[in-house]
This record gives sequence, structure tokens and C-alpha cells, in this order.
Amino acid sequence: MAVFTHVGAEDIAAFLRGFGIGPLTSAKGIAEGVENSNYLVDAGGTRYILTLYERRVDPDDLPFFIALTDHLANDGLPVPRFLPDLSGQHVQQLAGRAACLIQFLPGVSVTRPSGRHAYAAGMTLARMHDSTVGFDAGPANAMGLSTWPDLLDRLGTRADMSWPGLHELLATEINFLRENWPHDLPHGVIHADLFPDNVLMSDDEVSGVIDFYFSCRDVTLFDLAIMHSAWCFSPDGTHHQAQLAAGIIAGYESVRHLTDVDRAALPVLARGAAVRFLLTRALDWIDTPPDALVIRKDPTPYLRRLELYQSARAADIFRR
Amino acid sequence: MAVFTHVGAEDIAAFLRGFGIGPLTSAKGIAEGVENSNYLVDAGGTRYILTLYERRVDPDDLPFFIALTDHLANDGLPVPRFLPDLSGQHVQQLAGRAACLIQFLPGVSVTRPSGRHAYAAGMTLARMHDSTVGFDAGPANAMGLSTWPDLLDRLGTRADMSWPGLHELLATEINFLRENWPHDLPHGVIHADLFPDNVLMSDDEVSGVIDFYFSCRDVTLFDLAIMHSAWCFSPDGTHHQAQLAAGIIAGYESVRHLTDVDRAALPVLARGAAVRFLLTRALDWIDTPPDALVIRKDPTPYLRRLELYQSARAADIFRR
Repeated sequence: MAVFTHVGAEDIAAFLRGFGIGPLTSAKGIAEGVENSNYLVDAGGTRYILTLYERRVDPDDLPFFIALTDHLANDGLPVPRFLPDLSGQHVQQLAGRAACLIQFLPGVSVTRPSGRHAYAAGMTLARMHDSTVGFDAGPANAMGLSTWPDLLDRLGTRADMSWPGLHELLATEINFLRENWPHDLPHGVIHADLFPDNVLMSDDEVSGVIDFYFSCRDVTLFDLAIMHSAWCFSPDGTHHQAQLAAGIIAGYESVRHLTDVDRAALPVLARGAAVRFLLTRALDWIDTPPDALVIRKDPTPYLRRLELYQSARAADIFRR
Repeated sequence: MAVFTHVGAEDIAAFLRGFGIGPLTSAKGIAEGVENSNYLVDAGGTRYILTLYERRVDPDDLPFFIALTDHLANDGLPVPRFLPDLSGQHVQQLAGRAACLIQFLPGVSVTRPSGRHAYAAGMTLARMHDSTVGFDAGPANAMGLSTWPDLLDRLGTRADMSWPGLHELLATEINFLRENWPHDLPHGVIHADLFPDNVLMSDDEVSGVIDFYFSCRDVTLFDLAIMHSAWCFSPDGTHHQAQLAAGIIAGYESVRHLTDVDRAALPVLARGAAVRFLLTRALDWIDTPPDALVIRKDPTPYLRRLELYQSARAADIFRR
């Protein structure tokens, strides 16, 4: 969440000339995105996002993200397009990194969503799922169920000093999930990271869905479970916010019906969402020095979520 | 150069309501400024900068910066104004910090200035000096000549491991400067930090001068010496760029005449500028862990500048 690669104004102006865009009137590095460097750029009277890809995004995956966001935008979804340069290329090189010019969308990420925000976001997720039913591209989920045993091996017991018993708890939970995962539910393209950060709101409407860099193929409803885990808890993970859960599910159902089988699977998928973020945050916590440029996210709130999802209350959350 | 304090969109919107400004349509944390947190905010069709003051700016100094920038803007200089809220207050509290809403000015900071850029910036500096001739407010320079012995004491010999002999070199140099400082030259308000970063350009014109948080009273021409040290060297400090020096001085002289006494004093003032940045950068280097959130600036290029300013070539640079 910082600008890792500095690009001077002259180099940004030259980059934009490749798109036939200019003159450059403003360029500000912005603190946003998953470990990319981002600039908010004004040129020729229009605003753009210039993104340089740092370590977490594999440039080989960019063609999928470009095709996916184009597909969604063509379907009328508020998704920023990657823009082609004058020769039709979407991926450039800038300051030694893969770089893309992306549409700017207005709107703000809400920190404390309301039920109306949750409804609008749930509806948008369902519209994205509807839109991509026939969209066959996309890698398997690099942070999905099949990867969790390896992530747990990498973590080992190194986090147990801070979270006693974490390794054992995760090992047991991953076994449970492998035995109970709803593999038979429909698969499709998922956003896989639809936190409130990644949804831009104008008033109570979704004006933008951003940061598709975790998008992949998985059980479609895993996306709704991830969204529930990301939107419906107090920041410390201890309080479930039933109004937001109801909003997300009602918004989703306003577009896509949830069957009884879907609803029965959601508590399991939500346990999976908690495990996915608990694992990656615990690994980041252990592997990142406390004073590094990247801000570490505390895994504890995802431990609290997992406890709720494991409890008898979980079925009530997702029951009609 | 990062966002240290996170402020949610709801809190930014509420802050703006105090100014009668809204609705909020975009808010992005930007990586800019001297250890403040800055947001680029769009609301009601206008763009603003929202600044939260972190440790380096003393909120007690804000009234001076506000009065100074108002004075300069009233004189037609391209300086962003601090905006008053509906009750006339310029300084607010937000997220536990002093916070101000500031005009946004277009333009980009050039990384590799041309002679025309240097001329325009030198002219703007002289216009600011002309404008503030009758402006009597302002603190003494907290990074000026009288403070360097204390800064050197704080540094001690801790940097000598990386820069052998640095302490002795600085002690000798500070003695020289105390004996040769041109105290008799006119004093006034100086920007004191006019690096290319702090000048926004649109084409070859200055469209903004920003970051007045080091402004103070000192020998007025110390500002031109600082500007020379900041603009007229290759990034490693080894190559003096005569064309940029000529541009800055010619631009300055297009507004304010430099006397022979002024020109004779400039090499001494430039030695002072090199010492000022060498001291603070060496202290930051020693006191900042290599992996901290703040990027350390290597002091070495200022050692190279000092060597040039001490040499016989310095008089030629500033001679008519």
C-alpha cells in the first residue's frame, strides 16, 4: 500500500504518448492496491490509473484480467477497462516493470458499510457471476482449497507462539474442508477478494469494482462466502453484523437465486474463506518484519470469524 | 512519503461537510509531502488536497503557513490556499491529528528539469521574495546556521563509519560558515525547500509552488542557494549542470537584480545549503532503520555538492 517504483513525470508523459494521450496535467502516486505501484494521472482532460506490477501479480496473468474486465464492462458492469496503446497493446514496460493504463472510475470505498451498501455490492457480485457464466478462461484459484495444505506446511508452527494451537487448529480444519467441500456446486470466474476496499460507491450505488488480481476459477459461491467474511464483521472479527449479511444475501438473490443446497454449503465455504485469509495473513505476519514498507494485517480477526463459522450459529446466518 | 494515518471515506465526507463541500466522489491517499498524510479528494466537482499533519510539522506553525500562502496567492503567485471551514477555521482535527483542506493545483513535478524549467522556477522564487518584502511574520530558520552545531553534536561520529572523516569535515566547515556567513545581506521569508518536487509545472510554466512547511525567515538569498543545490546537479551530486544554474539565476534576475555583493556571497550560502542537507540526511540515515516506512535519502550527493562549492569553481558558477 505504497508506491514502490518511482516514475518521473517525463516518463509518464512519454508512456501516455504511446496511447495518443496528452498533455499530462497531473500525476500523483497513490497508496492503493495489492502491492502494485499506482499513479492517478490526468491527461488531455481525462483521469486514468497507471499501474506498475510489483512482485505479487504475475504479468503472464494480465491477459486474463484484461479479457475479464473487458467482458464485464461490455456487459454494463462498473469495471475499469485496461486501455490499449496506439498499436493495440495493453501491457507495456515502464521502469523495468509490466505496466498498464486503466480507466479511472469515481466513487469511494466505504469503511463502515450500511445495509444498502451491502445490498448493492451483493447484487453487483451476482451480476458479475451471471455475466461470466459463459466465460471459460481463467486460472484455477492459486489460494484455493487444494493449496491450503502447502500454505500450512510453509507456516508450520511458527505462528503458534502468537496464536497458541493455530497449526493444529488449521490442520484439523483443512481436513474437515477437504472432506466437506461442495465440489459439485457450479464453478465459474470469481473475484476472490471483494472486500469493501475493492468496491467504489457513489451514494448507495456501486460505481466501481476494482482489483481483479486474485480473480480465478473456483466454486462460484465461494465468492459470496469471501464477501460475507470481508463485509459482515466488526474490525476485530468478534461481532457478526447480521444486517450486512442480510443485505449481501438479499442483493445477491435479487439477481441469482440461492437454492437450499447453496445455502447449506455456504457455512462450509465461509469456513474456507476464513482459512484462506487466516493462512495468508499468518504467513505475511511471520514473514514480514514489523517495520517493513508493507503494513501487516493482523490474522486474529479471521480466527474469530472461523470460530463463528464453525459454530451452530453459522447455519442461521445463511438460512432463508 | 506514504499515508501514515488512514481516514475512511465517511470521515472525509463528514470533514468536508464542515466546509459546505460535497458530495464526496473520490478520495485517494497520495504518496507525497514531508511526512504528512495526504489525500487527493474530489467533492462537488472540485479537487482538493486533505493533509493530516504527522510528527514533523508543528501545528502551532500552521497559522504562519496559512497567512504566508494566502499572502502569496493574493499577489497572484501560483500557491495553493488553505481553505477555511464554514466557521472560518483553517485548522481542524481529524483522526487525532491537525488537518487542513488545501486547494489542488494542476501540474507535474519534473524529474529532469530543462533550462526553461529552471528559468521559470528561478523567476517564481524571485517573485515570492518580492511579494514577501513587507511580510514580517515567520519563525527563524529551525534548520539554519545557528542550529548546525547542535545537529552536528547529535550526529557525532556515528556516520563516520559510512563516510570516513565526515564529523571533522562538517566541524571545520561549520566554523568556516560561522565566520563567513553574510549576515548583512537582506533577510526575509524563504521557502527553504524548493526542490523540483515542490514545483508543479504545466508545459514550461510554474503552475504551483507547494510544501511551505519549512518556510521561515533567513538571509533571502539562502533560498536561491538551496535551490541551486537542489536543481543543478546530477542525482549522484558529481556533475554540476551549468545550463540549469544559468537558468535559475537568469530567471531570478529577471525579477530581482543580484548585486556583486550578492553574487560573492552565493558560494558561501551554497556551502551552507550543502551542510544543511548533509546534516539532516546523515541524521535521518543513522536514525532510520533501513526497512522503515520512510525512505532514507542518501547524504552522499550532498557531500559531492559541498566539495564543489568549496572549490575554486564555485565563484565561477555564481559570477556574472
